Amino acid sequence: MRALWLDRHRLTLCDTDIPRRAGECLVRVTMAGVCGTDLQLLAGYAGFTGIPGHEFVGIVEEVSRSGDRHWEGQRVVGNINVGCGTCARCRQGVQEHCETREVLGIRNRHGAFAEYLSLPSVNLHPVPDGIPDPAAVLVEPLAASCRILEQVVVDSMTRAAVLGDGRMGLLVAQVLGTTGASPVLFGRHEPRLALARSLGLDARPSPEGPLPMPDRFDVVVDVTGRPDGLERALGCVVPRGTIVLKTTVHDAVPFATWPVVVDEITVVGSRCGPFKPAIDLLECGAIRVAPLVDVVRRLDEWASALEEASRGLKVLFDPGRAAPGDTTA
Amino acid sequence: MRALWLDRHRLTLCDTDIPRRAGECLVRVTMAGVCGTDLQLLAGYAGFTGIPGHEFVGIVEEVSRSGDRHWEGQRVVGNINVGCGTCARCRQGVQEHCETREVLGIRNRHGAFAEYLSLPSVNLHPVPDGIPDPAAVLVEPLAASCRILEQVVVDSMTRAAVLGDGRMGLLVAQVLGTTGASPVLFGRHEPRLALARSLGLDARPSPEGPLPMPDRFDVVVDVTGRPDGLERALGCVVPRGTIVLKTTVHDAVPFATWPVVVDEITVVGSRCGPFKPAIDLLECGAIRVAPLVDVVRRLDEWASALEEASRGLKVLFDPGRAAPGDTTA
Repeated sequence: MRALWLDRHRLTLCDTDIPRRAGECLVRVTMAGVCGTDLQLLAGYAGFTGIPGHEFVGIVEEVSRSGDRHWEGQRVVGNINVGCGTCARCRQGVQEHCETREVLGIRNRHGAFAEYLSLPSVNLHPVPDGIPDPAAVLVEPLAASCRILEQVVVDSMTRAAVLGDGRMGLLVAQVLGTTGASPVLFGRHEPRLALARSLGLDARPSPEGPLPMPDRFDVVVDVTGRPDGLERALGCVVPRGTIVLKTTVHDAVPFATWPVVVDEITVVGSRCGPFKPAIDLLECGAIRVAPLVDVVRRLDEWASALEEASRGLKVLFDPGRAAPGDTTA
Repeated sequence: MRALWLDRHRLTLCDTDIPRRAGECLVRVTMAGVCGTDLQLLAGYAGFTGIPGHEFVGIVEEVSRSGDRHWEGQRVVGNINVGCGTCARCRQGVQEHCETREVLGIRNRHGAFAEYLSLPSVNLHPVPDGIPDPAAVLVEPLAASCRILEQVVVDSMTRAAVLGDGRMGLLVAQVLGTTGASPVLFGRHEPRLALARSLGLDARPSPEGPLPMPDRFDVVVDVTGRPDGLERALGCVVPRGTIVLKTTVHDAVPFATWPVVVDEITVVGSRCGPFKPAIDLLECGAIRVAPLVDVVRRLDEWASALEEASRGLKVLFDPGRAAPGDTTA
């Protein structure tokens, strides 16, 4: 099959084996999204070697367990964490925090920038017909946004802010809005802010420094993707307020913890989230993702795709589309 | 009255006016504790000028409001935060987070290293006869320890650790123990660990690096007093665990937020706490503080007192005790 292969910061288009794994489902990838984490993998984060990509939608083509036959032909998205299944955390149902977990396209498991991928059926979620592929591919980051509502109480009385006008920012702000809250989205890119406004969001230019106390927020979500995101969030949150961290960049920056103590701030790390509510929100139209997708590329167009992604565009791969004249598939 | 006066890193013993304030109670200080924050004030933190000291016990000598007459002669400890009384936070009863609050001996209000101090009666708490002065002076840091139980659920099932074998560490570990939990206290000073063991605590040498996952804790309290306390705590906490920050040192150190996100850690800043449960815990004998006090000094002995405090000893001032031949009082 065609796949993109990452080895020591270098990406190549290669022809490799279809990843059939015992006890799992083989999924033909119909669309895969390039996300900030993929760009970090290319920069060396996590030392991953193999096929990257973890945002996907596809069709189950083969199942290797008889009990999973009903998945065949099903259009699916999937949880990217595969736990060992035997440790205490897996037995508690928290495979996201299994110490030896594999993570699709991120850790010890080939990902979605390929014609096929393999996942256990417990990771899969059917996609309703009303959700087109380019929207379904965003279920994974939307689920990560929904995770916030499992961790922090947000309601119509909550003054909430989102720092960062990237895709995650626009998803998080929409998810917070489903609670009745009216979140403010802060960003530095006027076209992104205009896009946010077209989604009905209250989008404003990022403050240059700490906000005056009366303008601060009860809950501030950092999706800046920058190493100083926590510091910025501290300048936007009220005493006894909550900061949710989504940014996973690996750079360290100077940080003093005393303001967290003096103002008794709660900082909550937030990663992967529940797929079911994310799918429901897409199906009922509460979250709009179509305007967030910028371009669809073939796998062989990976160089321009990554360049576009690094410029902030949302790029989807269509792994089934071969280049003119390509006979690999 | 005799008082210690701090001005631009310099401390002097001076003779100054008794701090009578309209609507407040005048307290004769019978004992005052030197705490890490006082040492930081001397190092320039908060740019405080005036009389430092915020851990105290004393006797109410005068009241300026007729409704407070019953306080006269009462032995008291006191909440160190004095709010404006009119802002939203003060109206919610959270004067600790009033933006323009005064803080006894720390911010815009003279403190306890003096023969007298002034506080509103709402800040005062009577001290039961069974609690001697050297124990009562520790109600303030004990209340700060009790604050943790208002913020985080700790019970007999909670695997809890305290990082730091200073006084706060020994207080926090004892407070966590009152819930039925069996906290582990980690420290770097064998005499302090021995003292902790004499209080019935499970005290161990600090780990050199991150703990292996099976040895990690659900709740980790940082009272190291060091700028890398958060980093150390991250190496001791389980995924989805909670870190409570008590350290208020002002140095910044390089810090990367991604482990907080990947492991979905909650970090809770924790400052001042409730006096009533602290007094109750002392009165019923659940917390032992007598072994934590090392030496009692006169105000004129401030130089040796600070030297002792900087070496980790707990020093109390007895402001009523004049130096031989002193006729200031």
